[in-house]
Amino acid sequence: MAVLVVGSLALDSIETPFGKVAEILGGSAVYFSIAASFFAEVNLVGVVGKDFPQEHIRLLQEKNIDLRGLRRVDGKTFRWVGKYGYNLNDAQTLDTRLNVFEDFNPHIPDEYRNAEYVFLANIDPEIQLRVLKQVHQPRVIACDTMNFWIENKLEALKETIKKTDILIINEAETRELAKEANLVKACRSILAMGPKTLIIKQGNYGALMFTRKAIFSAPAFPLEETIDPTGAGDTFAGGFLGYIANSHNLQEGGVRQAVIFGSVMASFAVEQFSINRLSTLTYSEIEERYKEFKKLTFFEDI
Amino acid sequence: MAVLVVGSLALDSIETPFGKVAEILGGSAVYFSIAASFFAEVNLVGVVGKDFPQEHIRLLQEKNIDLRGLRRVDGKTFRWVGKYGYNLNDAQTLDTRLNVFEDFNPHIPDEYRNAEYVFLANIDPEIQLRVLKQVHQPRVIACDTMNFWIENKLEALKETIKKTDILIINEAETRELAKEANLVKACRSILAMGPKTLIIKQGNYGALMFTRKAIFSAPAFPLEETIDPTGAGDTFAGGFLGYIANSHNLQEGGVRQAVIFGSVMASFAVEQFSINRLSTLTYSEIEERYKEFKKLTFFEDI
Repeated sequence: MAVLVVGSLALDSIETPFGKVAEILGGSAVYFSIAASFFAEVNLVGVVGKDFPQEHIRLLQEKNIDLRGLRRVDGKTFRWVGKYGYNLNDAQTLDTRLNVFEDFNPHIPDEYRNAEYVFLANIDPEIQLRVLKQVHQPRVIACDTMNFWIENKLEALKETIKKTDILIINEAETRELAKEANLVKACRSILAMGPKTLIIKQGNYGALMFTRKAIFSAPAFPLEETIDPTGAGDTFAGGFLGYIANSHNLQEGGVRQAVIFGSVMASFAVEQFSINRLSTLTYSEIEERYKEFKKLTFFEDI
Repeated sequence: MAVLVVGSLALDSIETPFGKVAEILGGSAVYFSIAASFFAEVNLVGVVGKDFPQEHIRLLQEKNIDLRGLRRVDGKTFRWVGKYGYNLNDAQTLDTRLNVFEDFNPHIPDEYRNAEYVFLANIDPEIQLRVLKQVHQPRVIACDTMNFWIENKLEALKETIKKTDILIINEAETRELAKEANLVKACRSILAMGPKTLIIKQGNYGALMFTRKAIFSAPAFPLEETIDPTGAGDTFAGGFLGYIANSHNLQEGGVRQAVIFGSVMASFAVEQFSINRLSTLTYSEIEERYKEFKKLTFFEDI
């Protein structure tokens, strides 16, 4: 079954201690789509400007990502300029040019409206709500957000979260949304807002998944080369929801496996700039790393 | 088989967002000993002043901790004053009074010298070396240190580390000791200094264990109440080495279980100030939480 993603396509300029790149392919919908494409069909809704390189379109098409929902309009593509220090967990935004993304008013093509799995990448929650009005009865709505919307559009965000099945946010966002320093308490209060599942992304410390019944802790993969963490969270979400769309398994065990597949995909994404590592990845490499995650975390019962 | 620990006994004054306490029982040897006492006999070497409350001595005795190596000398007991913010991972030291600990020159009683398991808590590496000269052929030497010794006594510290089997330090210390930001690379360079095993304590993110062959990632237990993280690292080390001293199992699988027991003990320690939670703990609670760790991390193979 196809996964529908609504989010950004961007040209990123990034500086890390390991290098500097200009106007490379980025954006939440891009990272999500490519990661999800290893597991499921992907329907992408987004917008780019006339300057968006055709080679990026070709790359997405090669991954069998359905681009009937991608609009190309007059103007420039969304640009982001960011910088990371040796602590690769926190990006410093140097410049954001929304450009054509500023007036993004997603139209969901008829062919996409029966999507069973929907990912609302980090965009204005009012737009996320408009997307939800256009889709019929999805089985799973997953959603991301950021501090800016928590601080500036809290009411709309709460509306979105109420309709969300799986909220995927980072640790600081969790605390800020719940107004609570303790993560366990924060999660309980966020689950009370509607979602059945909350996944907290913790960067190079992994991810925590909270449901009403259980907590699952997934590590990050210890990497010898972390080049660029941009897009790791969206890549995680893509692997996670792509796997679920393929397995249709929403049982605790299946969702835990999906968290590991998400972590696997994120661990590859950060090994190179942009989607460079994801674009050459094979499914057997994904399975191999999944097994490495198992070895990494296994210990005997007592 | 007994575990020998050489470290501090202290009276701590601590402020956290959850409370403020003055002159409570603390110190690396105290946390370590009480945690280890659930698994093995403990021989403690340390020093206190005349002002050290007799009730603390009684508590250690009740835990069957052998105190023949504890000296009580003229002067005041070591005092530490610290403060934590909502991010309970980083302590801010407000005051340190070494007092009688300043001239600590540990004498290992004859009865302790055949110890098979030795823990050198965080003290001057020159003193750690003096301890090692007094013990015969221990099977396992485990060791902790801190940034101060990395910056001020690096040569002596490297001597100690060379003789150490299991180095147990935190993430910042790992990077600083190896002069390397990437943890995997840092670990490889530290293992080249001598230790067979490196355990990196990551506070509320858990612990990573590196050997020449494998990496093991253990989560922290998600707690609804973290009251005071003081002593969590030493408690971890106590549970870890205590379990190994009891099992005698230095195989990969056994050491992984020890890491989980260490994490279990640390998860209890932080639930209350001082050793208050550890002092009422039962072994069946420890086993229960070990099983919770298993549930927390389990996912199916593919």
